[in-house]
Amino acid sequence: MSQAIQSQSVGPRASGQIVLSVDAMGGDRGPAAVVAGLAICAPRMADTHFLLHGDEGQLGQLVAGQPALSGRVTIRHAARVVTMEDKPAQVMRHGQGTSMWSAIDAVKAGEAGAAVSCGNTGALMAVAMIRLRRLDGINRPAIACLWPSRNAHGFNLMLDAGADIKADAEDLLQYAMMGASYARNGMGIERPRVGLLNVGTEEHKGSAELKQAADLIAEAAGRGDYAFVGYVEGTDLPSDRVDVIVTDGFTGNVALKTAEGTARLIGDFLRQSFRATLFSKLTAVFAGGALNRLRERMDPRRANGGVFLGLNGIVVKSHGSSDATGVAAALEMAWKLARSGFRERLAARVASGLTSGQSAAGSPEEAGTTE
Amino acid sequence: MSQAIQSQSVGPRASGQIVLSVDAMGGDRGPAAVVAGLAICAPRMADTHFLLHGDEGQLGQLVAGQPALSGRVTIRHAARVVTMEDKPAQVMRHGQGTSMWSAIDAVKAGEAGAAVSCGNTGALMAVAMIRLRRLDGINRPAIACLWPSRNAHGFNLMLDAGADIKADAEDLLQYAMMGASYARNGMGIERPRVGLLNVGTEEHKGSAELKQAADLIAEAAGRGDYAFVGYVEGTDLPSDRVDVIVTDGFTGNVALKTAEGTARLIGDFLRQSFRATLFSKLTAVFAGGALNRLRERMDPRRANGGVFLGLNGIVVKSHGSSDATGVAAALEMAWKLARSGFRERLAARVASGLTSGQSAAGSPEEAGTTE
Repeated sequence: MSQAIQSQSVGPRASGQIVLSVDAMGGDRGPAAVVAGLAICAPRMADTHFLLHGDEGQLGQLVAGQPALSGRVTIRHAARVVTMEDKPAQVMRHGQGTSMWSAIDAVKAGEAGAAVSCGNTGALMAVAMIRLRRLDGINRPAIACLWPSRNAHGFNLMLDAGADIKADAEDLLQYAMMGASYARNGMGIERPRVGLLNVGTEEHKGSAELKQAADLIAEAAGRGDYAFVGYVEGTDLPSDRVDVIVTDGFTGNVALKTAEGTARLIGDFLRQSFRATLFSKLTAVFAGGALNRLRERMDPRRANGGVFLGLNGIVVKSHGSSDATGVAAALEMAWKLARSGFRERLAARVASGLTSGQSAAGSPEEAGTTE
Repeated sequence: MSQAIQSQSVGPRASGQIVLSVDAMGGDRGPAAVVAGLAICAPRMADTHFLLHGDEGQLGQLVAGQPALSGRVTIRHAARVVTMEDKPAQVMRHGQGTSMWSAIDAVKAGEAGAAVSCGNTGALMAVAMIRLRRLDGINRPAIACLWPSRNAHGFNLMLDAGADIKADAEDLLQYAMMGASYARNGMGIERPRVGLLNVGTEEHKGSAELKQAADLIAEAAGRGDYAFVGYVEGTDLPSDRVDVIVTDGFTGNVALKTAEGTARLIGDFLRQSFRATLFSKLTAVFAGGALNRLRERMDPRRANGGVFLGLNGIVVKSHGSSDATGVAAALEMAWKLARSGFRERLAARVASGLTSGQSAAGSPEEAGTTE
């Protein structure tokens, strides 16, 4: 089998090379979109090799059609595919032999620095949990997502976007630590500003549990090397007064989908407005530049890539409907995190943060340069 | 004092006349915006009289400046004002003599069919709770708000928008009953479609409590005269597959503010796009018609008016920053609900819904025509 022969050619980060492990079969658009995304990225990531998991015949053909990928890809045959309908618990028990499982296993084996998949989110988290295991001290892993914002860097970070449906005060503290570490290593924000999502910014708002979380997050700001701005509201998610917004996975998931739904509604209304009269139809042609600029800034593909935090390994979830541009954005995020040594930095940061009282001095993040 | 003399002229809905009780002092823009809003509404509500609560001198002058209000307004002097910073618990204890308290008391006394205020939401709910009391069988009152949607009537209804920070399964059932009744009486939707907000539409998603709420809401659909569409997601808030979206007040408040923040961000980006080049600046002039159509459809003032549900009386909360147009929208909502006999219909519906097993036949809503 070519699988065995090909995989021998990939050492575990031989000579400092970055290796990304990519599930080619999971998305709505199939492996063609994934391979096209790889072809966009490969020239920008000269130091990187790709492990591609899925149907060998199909992938071989697709890769051969992309000159940019020549010599850059190793295909790992996986006969089975996790569908969007598969239940996480089932995949956890019977998922071996799927491209998703295989992609995660390459990270577990130390062959790759990060895994990327467009597949079923719940199943991906379940497989990642069982194969990579949680970081020491982390109770609930979280999914962090990018949120278009008024900040100079263009995005805020929000977590948990839906890895779990609840989080207690201690979990929210861990999200703050992990989110700040991600913002530093993946987004280049030296001392991220962290906010806790609530129904108002006044101190007396919200539940007792949230108040407790606010106290814990405030108290750990030194160890976590972030600034705590206190409570923020839904209107602050795109705000420039905060970089990392912390919330439980139920609220975070609803907020994320509410923003998606709102943006889509406005987009539809805008198109309808420009189609309402012959004159406005003509105007739309001239307004094309302005409307394209808007589309680009709000393009959900730019913000693609939910990062799983709190596991022994980096996993990036690309949107199920990602096209080549979206896949490329998710790969780029995985690449940035793999290069920055994020996995080790996060583990150390969490360890230092949870054994409270210590100062952040001497943590790996302080010692190294941030991405 | 003219207060006593003037108030004698207002009977409790003498000869079927609608009376609206309006707190003139609460909003960010002060009484001028409220009186200007009244002046917009008055010609459209020929059957209506207004009780205006606040500083007699200031209000007298403002009303005198609006010919449309001649003979339509009775001023009730209230020397004190509830500010946006006042804490609900304090207002509840020491709020007597404020324009807000006075506006609610007119509903309690049966002098007015509904109260409207632009003031502090938490304080308004607290005063309404203590003065009007909860409807029999209602544990937690809720705030229902309109949500711009793809439905033909232009809006969906979402509750709770933040009256309380939590809700158990039984509360969520009550929200479904009350929301459906409001959609029928305030929005003219005969058999509203109710959805329960969750992190996915699949049956296995969400907490055990939410699953229990879904079962209760499904089981009560006949008595509540609504159709239950099951779980909906954040993306469905503006959807045309649902009319009423039920959730707890924490999630609802975050969703509402997330949508507001997203719409504002897109609006800002759109303006920036049209200002980016000289050509796009010129184009913006021609695109004015289309952009105005968009602005009109997304205008938050159109959807202004959070309705308090679950109290012995109708209270409508207008946005704190409402201008005359926004105040007019809130007044119109209060007027529609007062005219439809919503208070009595809702009470009967809740009573019938909670003494389970009964069919909806014979409930007051069935017997009467809906607005």
